Amino acid sequence: MKHILSLLLMLICSITATAQQATWIWYPGDFEIWLGNDMQNRRTERETFYPVFWKMDSHYPLVDFHKEVDLTAPEEVSIYVEGRYNVRIDGKAFEGAPSKITIPAGKHWINIKIFNQAFVPAVYISGRTVFSDNTWLVTPEDKEWIDETGKASDISATKWLHSGSWNFNKPETPPSAFRLPVSPASAVSVSSHSKGRIVDFGKETFGFIKLHGVNGSGKVNLYYGESREEALDIQHAETLDRLSFHQSEKRDTVLSLSKAFRYVNVETDNEVQVDSISMLYEYAGVKERGNFRCSDEELNSIYDVAKYTFRLATREFFIDGIKRDRWVWSGDAYQSYLMNYYLFYDNETVQRTILALRGKDPVTSHINTILDYTFYWFMGIYDYYLYTGDETFIKQFYPRMKTLMEYCLGRRNKNGLVEGMSGDWVFIDWADGLSKKGELSFEQLLFCRSLETMTLCADIAGEKKDAETYRQYAAELRARLFPLYWSDSKQALVHSRVNGMQTSNVTRYANMFAIFFEYFDQQQKSAVKKSVLLNDNIQKITTPYMRFYELEALCAMGEQAYVLKEMKSYWGGMLKLGATSFWELYDPSVSGPAHYAMYGRPFGKSLCHAWGASPLYLLGKYYLGVKPESPGYKTYTVQPVLGGLEWMEGTVPVPEGDIKMYCSKKEIKITTISGTGTLRLQSTIKPTCAQAIAESKGGNTYELTLQPGKTYVVNYRAVK
Amino acid sequence: MKHILSLLLMLICSITATAQQATWIWYPGDFEIWLGNDMQNRRTERETFYPVFWKMDSHYPLVDFHKEVDLTAPEEVSIYVEGRYNVRIDGKAFEGAPSKITIPAGKHWINIKIFNQAFVPAVYISGRTVFSDNTWLVTPEDKEWIDETGKASDISATKWLHSGSWNFNKPETPPSAFRLPVSPASAVSVSSHSKGRIVDFGKETFGFIKLHGVNGSGKVNLYYGESREEALDIQHAETLDRLSFHQSEKRDTVLSLSKAFRYVNVETDNEVQVDSISMLYEYAGVKERGNFRCSDEELNSIYDVAKYTFRLATREFFIDGIKRDRWVWSGDAYQSYLMNYYLFYDNETVQRTILALRGKDPVTSHINTILDYTFYWFMGIYDYYLYTGDETFIKQFYPRMKTLMEYCLGRRNKNGLVEGMSGDWVFIDWADGLSKKGELSFEQLLFCRSLETMTLCADIAGEKKDAETYRQYAAELRARLFPLYWSDSKQALVHSRVNGMQTSNVTRYANMFAIFFEYFDQQQKSAVKKSVLLNDNIQKITTPYMRFYELEALCAMGEQAYVLKEMKSYWGGMLKLGATSFWELYDPSVSGPAHYAMYGRPFGKSLCHAWGASPLYLLGKYYLGVKPESPGYKTYTVQPVLGGLEWMEGTVPVPEGDIKMYCSKKEIKITTISGTGTLRLQSTIKPTCAQAIAESKGGNTYELTLQPGKTYVVNYRAVK
Repeated sequence: MKHILSLLLMLICSITATAQQATWIWYPGDFEIWLGNDMQNRRTERETFYPVFWKMDSHYPLVDFHKEVDLTAPEEVSIYVEGRYNVRIDGKAFEGAPSKITIPAGKHWINIKIFNQAFVPAVYISGRTVFSDNTWLVTPEDKEWIDETGKASDISATKWLHSGSWNFNKPETPPSAFRLPVSPASAVSVSSHSKGRIVDFGKETFGFIKLHGVNGSGKVNLYYGESREEALDIQHAETLDRLSFHQSEKRDTVLSLSKAFRYVNVETDNEVQVDSISMLYEYAGVKERGNFRCSDEELNSIYDVAKYTFRLATREFFIDGIKRDRWVWSGDAYQSYLMNYYLFYDNETVQRTILALRGKDPVTSHINTILDYTFYWFMGIYDYYLYTGDETFIKQFYPRMKTLMEYCLGRRNKNGLVEGMSGDWVFIDWADGLSKKGELSFEQLLFCRSLETMTLCADIAGEKKDAETYRQYAAELRARLFPLYWSDSKQALVHSRVNGMQTSNVTRYANMFAIFFEYFDQQQKSAVKKSVLLNDNIQKITTPYMRFYELEALCAMGEQAYVLKEMKSYWGGMLKLGATSFWELYDPSVSGPAHYAMYGRPFGKSLCHAWGASPLYLLGKYYLGVKPESPGYKTYTVQPVLGGLEWMEGTVPVPEGDIKMYCSKKEIKITTISGTGTLRLQSTIKPTCAQAIAESKGGNTYELTLQPGKTYVVNYRAVK
Repeated sequence: MKHILSLLLMLICSITATAQQATWIWYPGDFEIWLGNDMQNRRTERETFYPVFWKMDSHYPLVDFHKEVDLTAPEEVSIYVEGRYNVRIDGKAFEGAPSKITIPAGKHWINIKIFNQAFVPAVYISGRTVFSDNTWLVTPEDKEWIDETGKASDISATKWLHSGSWNFNKPETPPSAFRLPVSPASAVSVSSHSKGRIVDFGKETFGFIKLHGVNGSGKVNLYYGESREEALDIQHAETLDRLSFHQSEKRDTVLSLSKAFRYVNVETDNEVQVDSISMLYEYAGVKERGNFRCSDEELNSIYDVAKYTFRLATREFFIDGIKRDRWVWSGDAYQSYLMNYYLFYDNETVQRTILALRGKDPVTSHINTILDYTFYWFMGIYDYYLYTGDETFIKQFYPRMKTLMEYCLGRRNKNGLVEGMSGDWVFIDWADGLSKKGELSFEQLLFCRSLETMTLCADIAGEKKDAETYRQYAAELRARLFPLYWSDSKQALVHSRVNGMQTSNVTRYANMFAIFFEYFDQQQKSAVKKSVLLNDNIQKITTPYMRFYELEALCAMGEQAYVLKEMKSYWGGMLKLGATSFWELYDPSVSGPAHYAMYGRPFGKSLCHAWGASPLYLLGKYYLGVKPESPGYKTYTVQPVLGGLEWMEGTVPVPEGDIKMYCSKKEIKITTISGTGTLRLQSTIKPTCAQAIAESKGGNTYELTLQPGKTYVVNYRAVK
């Protein structure tokens, strides 16, 4: 009896276990595009729908799902579907649309074909050994037919991809029912004013307002503010809700569209009462894996607010800002990917964002219509591969990379260079008077890096001929960059060429990218540091967006001490002004409510913008100093730089877990997890180590090889 | 007082009148694609969903609608929308989503931007002078933004098309609510059999079955049959419905999916009763404008059954057959267009079908996956332009023609010829043992005609450079056809080249197309008539599909008398077997229920197939003899040929109305409507005419110029 019971228990466990393995699957990229459309069309401006101005694509309405199985015993399988469907085994269809089938023992091929125009065709299949996951193959055109003689068609041209999925692991929660999670939150204070009350939630936040105890007939107007000034300025508040009630007893109401705010100004007619308001905080359920703490409390605050800023702007996708656009912008997202690798390491959000940005063929404009944003899209894939080692993603979506690159190559000018053509937005940065005319050095650099990315991806996808073509394009362009743009007198890359001539304009952009792209040699780097980066005569950057790269370039040249001061001054400056999240643009020379203005509107600026969170990345990569050297951290470097701090400690996520480290001026402690690391440090003494002896690399630099799953304690003496 | 009253009445009339002018509009092609997806996914086979095997495309989920107006007075405008939307005048948005706006006097530009993933974004705008129609422009990417300084973007690359519409002329019936009309119809007889009853609707029909007085709990099975045999063969009937009821009082039920049938076999459990069944006949509301009557009653019956067949297969689109595929097939549709020009002249169904077939970019396979079907798509446009003169359609969709042709050009083999490549279906016809191997002469002919179509369309679209390219491709290919395929010994085009060598195989296909394409000279025509068309040793055609072209080729050579006999024998043969609509395939050598078999299934054949209706076209074009000579019947020919009939009369629709004609062996009577016609006839005497003198063209041929809107009576004496 006992034997039977334990067998039964095993069976139950086994069924439970396999049930957990099943997940809703779809054509890869399709749910991402559908959700991207849905989310990006939630922007409102003073209650008016405010959609994007680029082409939105769609999911395939008809998709075939396919898998070959080999069963030792017949198996009953449950099928849940979003759409109209049929089920075939070995090409023979079941009558009707079965919710359960039995697959006979032996080798069989299963097809489930689903039609759905309104929503993404998706399926959840749950059996003992047969269940839906990414091993299922999908195609929008199976080209499979039988002619009048019963002869099967030539399906050799049918392209199958691995299906896409996320975390829809229960049959009762299909992708179409997707909502971000919410949790209730209360205001911290309420104060009255002449026409209503202003409710303060204590810090920047995002969610659905809930009105408690609404009674009577009349209007309730809600004016949202990231600042108190905005909520009170009913003529200029960027977002608002005008509600109408007709009820004879008290009821609660939750609004249907989530919004960003810290303050809510509630103004009601006399005939309607609202007891109070609270909110349902809406958030993405991503886990924080990275961390940073140090001896400088201001820097810790900066890190914390950056983390909160980034958390708010990490939603269905990495979006720009939570109040205004709520769109997926490729340039903004590119920075979010990098921050993500040091905080969430949530690579599904990276994939989702890349796919939503790309949409589908045909390519009819640059991503977000912006020339540089197309290039950031490629660069994001380069980094994604480096940080995750995910080759499947590259292989699956290589065709979409290729057609986008073909679009770029087709739009080169007669000199073989890119420049803004009809309908293109050349962005670079929000900066007064920035010239977008002619062949910009910045754009050529990004184009060159994009071509290098395509070379890499073509190799991974096994497209050797393409790889050769891209390799050649990239090499040719790179070889031309210096002849075209380097100015000996300026000791810098100039901003542009107009009518075939170098302009005399020097900006920071191309120069700082050339540093961390490693396009400069050591001598050029040093020259540029002086002539551009540390030169106050070169136009200053006022967006955290481009400060990201400026500070990265300085860090890449070992200027962590300088950058630490800059961070404390710039991000600390926002904190001193009461920021609870970091802004779209911060100009220290401005004062008062003028800080909130942008785009010609008094509250046009976003006070919670993902690109404001860059210290997350800088501190992880250039202070803790952890970065991958080969895809997916198979090899990596740890090169801690205190930059003036007494000590710091933190965690950096990698594919198999987290790298933990502590660093003071005397001691470094590292716990590894996987891959082979190299600890590189500068010390005036020969470092000691419990496990191994560090090897001198000449001068003060020492290196120690880090094996997986070990803890190293190194005593050393920091150079400065 | 009277003056004011009449002014008021005028105003009311005026408002009523303009309200009728408004119609729902959308991005052109998008509703057509959406509806095509919806309709083509209604196919079932024994209750199992049976979808297409090619890629389905989607509507744009986000569309901007735009118009510039110039008003003498402010105007209130009502706005009805399918989707989330905003409204802007001169770039400035109204708050919220207004259902009424007032446009100030003067020049203004209006934009309405709509988002809808589930359904096609559409709008109905109704004002006194401002209302939605095809003058509104639409785009899926306006590329219109304002930068941080308030500067408007470069929107020079934005491509605007004229909006699409159909007949959704009331705000309360938006496109998403589209249903074909229905009307109730009763069975003509009911008879019992051992397990149930069989209900006969008297002839092939299509619609929704209604069950009357259903009571009790249990199952009701409906087996549909185009033949009585099919309905009774519950194992092999191609379509069926299995219904379950649990009700305690009598109720009627209408099924949700329409089906094709003449017979319905109703089998019920003992525990459930059904009093009777009737149907809701579902039809397209297209008007019959063409007509044909003659001295031969069998031919009149053939014409009537052809008309009924074609009416049944003319639905949301021109489909193949009503029982089985219910799909839009380009080769089938191509014939439907031609029949349509002589019956309905419903050019919106032609447009809709062309657009649904084409879908959107990128092109990833041939249309319906079939090489020849891609070429029929081009040829359909050629004819559409010739019969309608509609240049707007060509201009709007030229880019989709071009990308499809680029796909074809990209798939030529090393000899510059087309042949079936991986994943291509080479169809030609259902015919035993027909070789699809190598470079088929038939496919090159169709390719050549497609290139000629592209030359024409590129010229219309103003793409002069493209036109030159296509002109050259077409000329080169045409010049190669005879060297490649003409066999002096066979006095015919051979079927194919394999490994660079002519095969000895001669089939009818290429030879008959070369006749009405006018690719043969007179001598070749005569040779081919003898060596191929009238040669019983050449494999016979058994589909009405290819008989269409075979008989057309013979008519084009003046063989109407022969063709008349063929029609009576072939189509008359089906009538003698009791056909109430014409079939997918008819082989006179078969007998009994074997006629219903195809695709290895006893009732696989469609007994109502559009391509069975070709007498509609042949009688209109080659007997009544009316055909356009320049686009839209600006010039046309009337060349009546009795072909052995005593008399015939009929109507042929043209853009501005109908051409009516009567013809006996002694008298021709024609009423014209528009354009300049040429009556061409053969007479052994000099014809008399009330209005003009016919001019001898030498021999027995006379011509008379026909002016618009006149009636001509010509006395003559037919040559034979």
